[in-house]
Amino acid sequence: MSNPAHFSPAEARKLIREKNWVKPTSGVANGYIQANLAVLPKELAFDFLLFCQRNPKPCPIIDVIEPGDVAPQVAAPSANVKTDIPKYRVYKKGEFVEETTDVTEIWDENMVGFLIGCSFTFEEALLKNEVPIRHIEENCNVPMYITNIPCVKAGIFEGPMVVSMRPMTEKQAIRAVQLTSRFPSVHGAPVHIGNPEVIGIKDIHNPDFGDSVTIKEREVPVFWACGVTPQAVAMHVKPEIMITHAPGHMFITDLKNEQFAIL
Amino acid sequence: MSNPAHFSPAEARKLIREKNWVKPTSGVANGYIQANLAVLPKELAFDFLLFCQRNPKPCPIIDVIEPGDVAPQVAAPSANVKTDIPKYRVYKKGEFVEETTDVTEIWDENMVGFLIGCSFTFEEALLKNEVPIRHIEENCNVPMYITNIPCVKAGIFEGPMVVSMRPMTEKQAIRAVQLTSRFPSVHGAPVHIGNPEVIGIKDIHNPDFGDSVTIKEREVPVFWACGVTPQAVAMHVKPEIMITHAPGHMFITDLKNEQFAIL
Repeated sequence: MSNPAHFSPAEARKLIREKNWVKPTSGVANGYIQANLAVLPKELAFDFLLFCQRNPKPCPIIDVIEPGDVAPQVAAPSANVKTDIPKYRVYKKGEFVEETTDVTEIWDENMVGFLIGCSFTFEEALLKNEVPIRHIEENCNVPMYITNIPCVKAGIFEGPMVVSMRPMTEKQAIRAVQLTSRFPSVHGAPVHIGNPEVIGIKDIHNPDFGDSVTIKEREVPVFWACGVTPQAVAMHVKPEIMITHAPGHMFITDLKNEQFAIL
Repeated sequence: MSNPAHFSPAEARKLIREKNWVKPTSGVANGYIQANLAVLPKELAFDFLLFCQRNPKPCPIIDVIEPGDVAPQVAAPSANVKTDIPKYRVYKKGEFVEETTDVTEIWDENMVGFLIGCSFTFEEALLKNEVPIRHIEENCNVPMYITNIPCVKAGIFEGPMVVSMRPMTEKQAIRAVQLTSRFPSVHGAPVHIGNPEVIGIKDIHNPDFGDSVTIKEREVPVFWACGVTPQAVAMHVKPEIMITHAPGHMFITDLKNEQFAIL
């Protein structure tokens, strides 16, 4: 098998569809946007889309799979989003039901799929600029925290913002603000730099999701809005059914990261 | 009456609500975002919001008035959007029915209001940087053109992008790209600079909407996506009922232009 980093998005999705790739997608089809998935019943779709519209930092919409469609028409028109993610999770009334590699049987015409940007996009920009990404260095998951920053309510959806954290020097933090400001539609600039208590985080070494990472001397924690937020908010209303990707098992789009840079 | 430019948004909306200001809002409450209005039946709301999401340059959503609400909860929570616009237009099945100063009797709980960004926001940035705005100099409406650039379809909504045009020198055009790139959520950077035929405009002196303006020697036309696009696209599907603002008679929000700058 050739280097997964050089797969085209279509090649990667084909492997996944044929169950020849049933593992996380980090490092696959480098340079292309990978997205979180949240599938909800149609009657919740307007409120959820409005929630994302009002909270673009934690909930950057990449594309939407319209009722009856199998593909996101802009992000990957040749895909089948019911089979092209290596691992899905199914929830009923907010309770985890199963993990599966194919949701064709479950996903019906009354559901709408939302593809939501993930931090892989801006991490590429950070790496290119030699800003360290500690959880990659330490080969673990990014630490994530529930904050005291409220999202803007929309319809029945509301809740606190979840953030991810990357430690770096203050000089690197300034560069990181510049780099990620170029990508307002995939989380954009940080939401906070420095003292975690200000945003309601009591113990930086005890994240709510993911793993704790080393913060070296003279480093400050830098916080970005995290794509876990919309899933958490949606789960909170206990929808009849909800389908998501399994953590790290993302949908690979045909869109290049650089297309999402506004500068 | 004090200088309208210095009105607070709440003061301006009160005057309008009490019918003491029944004229265009250009130059009122300077520095605050003014918005286009499009009110549609609830059953079209998801498709329309998705259309705007997919076409952020012509259709930048500022806020949404949810079914049953009278105010946009983020943009102006103390407003009454059924009375706070100086002049509305009502359409039934795509046909103009009436112009009115109050839509309280018409707007019911089955409708959703969309506030869409207008070019006033980035024109302020251009003026501050001494980039000329010819239609202001010539005291007429901005020239607008239907292009051959297709919007991205969403549900039943589709159609060509409408653009507005401002002529300037090539040097000013470069500055204008920089200035308007700061505002991706109110039309953002231009969609085209130079030869109008490339985007399907046959006669630059014969705009589809608004007025023709002088293009001086050594000036090039610079085109921005225009907020007329979503209204034109919505009208095209002939909704049972649709309410809009009358041209130039905008909704004044509590949000400052600068809040919408990403840099």
